[in-house]
Amino acid sequence: MSLRSSTALLTDMYELTMIDAALASGHAMRPAVFELFGRRLPAARRYGVVAGIARVLDAVEAFRFSDDELTYLRSLDTLSDETIDYLASYRFSGDITGYAEGECYFPGSPLLTVTAPFAEGVVLETVLLSILNHDCAVASAASRMTSAAHGRPCLEMGARRTHEEGAVAAARAAVVAGFAGSSILEAGRSYGIHTIGTAAHSFTLLYDSEDEAFDAQIARLGTGTTLLVDTYDTPRGVERAVAAARRVGGKLGAVRLDSGDLIAQAFTVRQQLDDLGAHDTKITVTSDLDEYAIAALGAAPVDSYGVGTKVVTGSGHPTAELVYKLVARQGDDGQWAPVAKKSSSKTSIGGRKFAGRVVAEGHAAVELVVATNDEDAALRYFASRGARPLQVPLVTNGEINEEHRGDGSLEAARERHEASRAELPYQAWRLSEGEVAIPTVMEEL
Amino acid sequence: MSLRSSTALLTDMYELTMIDAALASGHAMRPAVFELFGRRLPAARRYGVVAGIARVLDAVEAFRFSDDELTYLRSLDTLSDETIDYLASYRFSGDITGYAEGECYFPGSPLLTVTAPFAEGVVLETVLLSILNHDCAVASAASRMTSAAHGRPCLEMGARRTHEEGAVAAARAAVVAGFAGSSILEAGRSYGIHTIGTAAHSFTLLYDSEDEAFDAQIARLGTGTTLLVDTYDTPRGVERAVAAARRVGGKLGAVRLDSGDLIAQAFTVRQQLDDLGAHDTKITVTSDLDEYAIAALGAAPVDSYGVGTKVVTGSGHPTAELVYKLVARQGDDGQWAPVAKKSSSKTSIGGRKFAGRVVAEGHAAVELVVATNDEDAALRYFASRGARPLQVPLVTNGEINEEHRGDGSLEAARERHEASRAELPYQAWRLSEGEVAIPTVMEEL
Repeated sequence: MSLRSSTALLTDMYELTMIDAALASGHAMRPAVFELFGRRLPAARRYGVVAGIARVLDAVEAFRFSDDELTYLRSLDTLSDETIDYLASYRFSGDITGYAEGECYFPGSPLLTVTAPFAEGVVLETVLLSILNHDCAVASAASRMTSAAHGRPCLEMGARRTHEEGAVAAARAAVVAGFAGSSILEAGRSYGIHTIGTAAHSFTLLYDSEDEAFDAQIARLGTGTTLLVDTYDTPRGVERAVAAARRVGGKLGAVRLDSGDLIAQAFTVRQQLDDLGAHDTKITVTSDLDEYAIAALGAAPVDSYGVGTKVVTGSGHPTAELVYKLVARQGDDGQWAPVAKKSSSKTSIGGRKFAGRVVAEGHAAVELVVATNDEDAALRYFASRGARPLQVPLVTNGEINEEHRGDGSLEAARERHEASRAELPYQAWRLSEGEVAIPTVMEEL
Repeated sequence: MSLRSSTALLTDMYELTMIDAALASGHAMRPAVFELFGRRLPAARRYGVVAGIARVLDAVEAFRFSDDELTYLRSLDTLSDETIDYLASYRFSGDITGYAEGECYFPGSPLLTVTAPFAEGVVLETVLLSILNHDCAVASAASRMTSAAHGRPCLEMGARRTHEEGAVAAARAAVVAGFAGSSILEAGRSYGIHTIGTAAHSFTLLYDSEDEAFDAQIARLGTGTTLLVDTYDTPRGVERAVAAARRVGGKLGAVRLDSGDLIAQAFTVRQQLDDLGAHDTKITVTSDLDEYAIAALGAAPVDSYGVGTKVVTGSGHPTAELVYKLVARQGDDGQWAPVAKKSSSKTSIGGRKFAGRVVAEGHAAVELVVATNDEDAALRYFASRGARPLQVPLVTNGEINEEHRGDGSLEAARERHEASRAELPYQAWRLSEGEVAIPTVMEEL
């Protein structure tokens, strides 16, 4: 379900002025194909991760202009009555195919293909891009983190560092890419995500002593809780934490380190815990982590990672740089014409495209993107090349394919991402800038 | 008005587990002071810009746990009945003072000071930080852009490159920092922001020729519209654009350039327009602009700037790095005790703080931040130093000060920012990394 009862004004003004002019000239209903893709991956990363598809479907469903939206639009005194009437009855009736959530993608991969009359398709541009540029950016960063963590759990804790609703979407995108849970409660309510967290420094400071604070936390959350041990003096904090659990006859679940040199501290604290006999007490670290810090902590005795700012802001790349382009439209003769901007550097390839991934001996080798109007020919070609087709029907004749949102879709996306990433060649796992993991080959059939 | 009927779950889990433990131990109602501030400015910038205060007030008002929220929380099976009951009756009853929207800020500036029982104040942490970290990041970047534009209008067009709701907040923050309008319709409806935009490349490509597209746009939007001239060949596009307006006896309002070398093109296109006698036709540029590109275009014949990705993502710094810390709380003896984390690098200064800006001969010179429990003493001290007090009452005994949200508050924030920025010394306008514009002096009274 979408947050707003209508998503229709999450739209750039120019989508509506284009419809206005195209309705008047009689071109608004030309059948058209729009494609959502990235020309490149941010910062020469090795792969991108598709996330936000379920949110796209919710947004398309809620894309209706009700009286509230129409009243605002009339107040602008820009759009014709014909346009207002068109919007009043707007309901997306076309087709959307695209990459399933969790799939890896590469430059030129057609993440979404929207086939509809021009006006119906163009007006979705802004909200589709907003959702996918945000969610793919977060998931693409998050996947590098879970990859660098080599199986140790990553927990998303960045809500406070991003827009309050972006935070909820970011938690979801992080889980698609393998995060084990999130701090933000709304992500728990909205998406069933496991929510985590115990206490901040303010809790310790509320009490007259660290001992009192630890006793109070354990009294309610049990000895299995995680105690934050670096408010005053970390070695003393660790000692008090273990002692607090023992006072009530238990073993402490974990200690959390939220500042300082985490690698050095992890070794010191592990040694101290072992010396105290607290072999089962785990260590979680949470200060300014990104994929590089996680990789650097790989040899340190750390049990889980809490990641904040860097995951919700895409680790330096808060937008996935995806664009939405008209790639084909019918002329008055009913024939499809491929179209593309011609001038300067932003040249795109026209025509509707189909995508398949060649997987040989368990390893992805090539992203095939073929321009053709004949889907069957594309599928035959993929079969002949040993490529699995990547696009799935998301909306058909305006009807949403429920498989890709709602209960179970998030877990399915997470599993899909794990499988899709596992299939990539070894170089995909490198954190450094460089070549994409597999080349995209564009062809015309 | 807040987007959600309740903002209460835009909260990290650990705020509630802290309340749970503190209620059980009898410490939850200790009077407490929390402070929201930044330890530093991102990337050694010269100043930050406060934005999002009106949204903070909306979020505080909507911070109520209704049946929906309580049902979810009960389902977690983590919180005691006492805690659930406390949350069910939660209503913020304390005081919030802070910097008015639009004001410049510096490291250590107390953007918000929340005085309330511990449980009431701690639970607001996540949503207050989410809003201000996002909105201040955007406004701080936007202010550098409007400063670099030297009076030429900047227009926000980045909705598609950020979370769909973040986009609406970003448009508002950009306007606080001097942007003249936004592309996103919801910002127009929600905040009365001037919405702008005419057409994309897809519009031109919809037609059989560029001439037909231009004629169609002018037929509905008038000759004063802005035509996008770089779909096929820019010089031909400019020629056709001017001709299209003349065909209906008018002068073309503007041409838009969205790709290529904007500086070189601006000179070429201006010359071409002048040669065609279209002296009144303006040039707007919109491709990948940031504050540096805007500054570089300062000498080029450009009339306005459309800024997308870089403004909505904080121009490399999508979060303002603000934190929310317990700085004082009463003990059982009823005495206020300043508190602060002691270990390692994240040391903070304890105690409630008041802020004033020393302005001498029209120029801001020092940000005074004084720790004291005696507000009158702080105000007398500011008067003696020629400092204007910076904090205003935002919420008093739980009642919201309506002056800082709703009609007129956005325009007031925009004017306040213009005045606050104008007061900064010359070095504040430098785009390079370096020292903050004025030093923050922290003192105990």
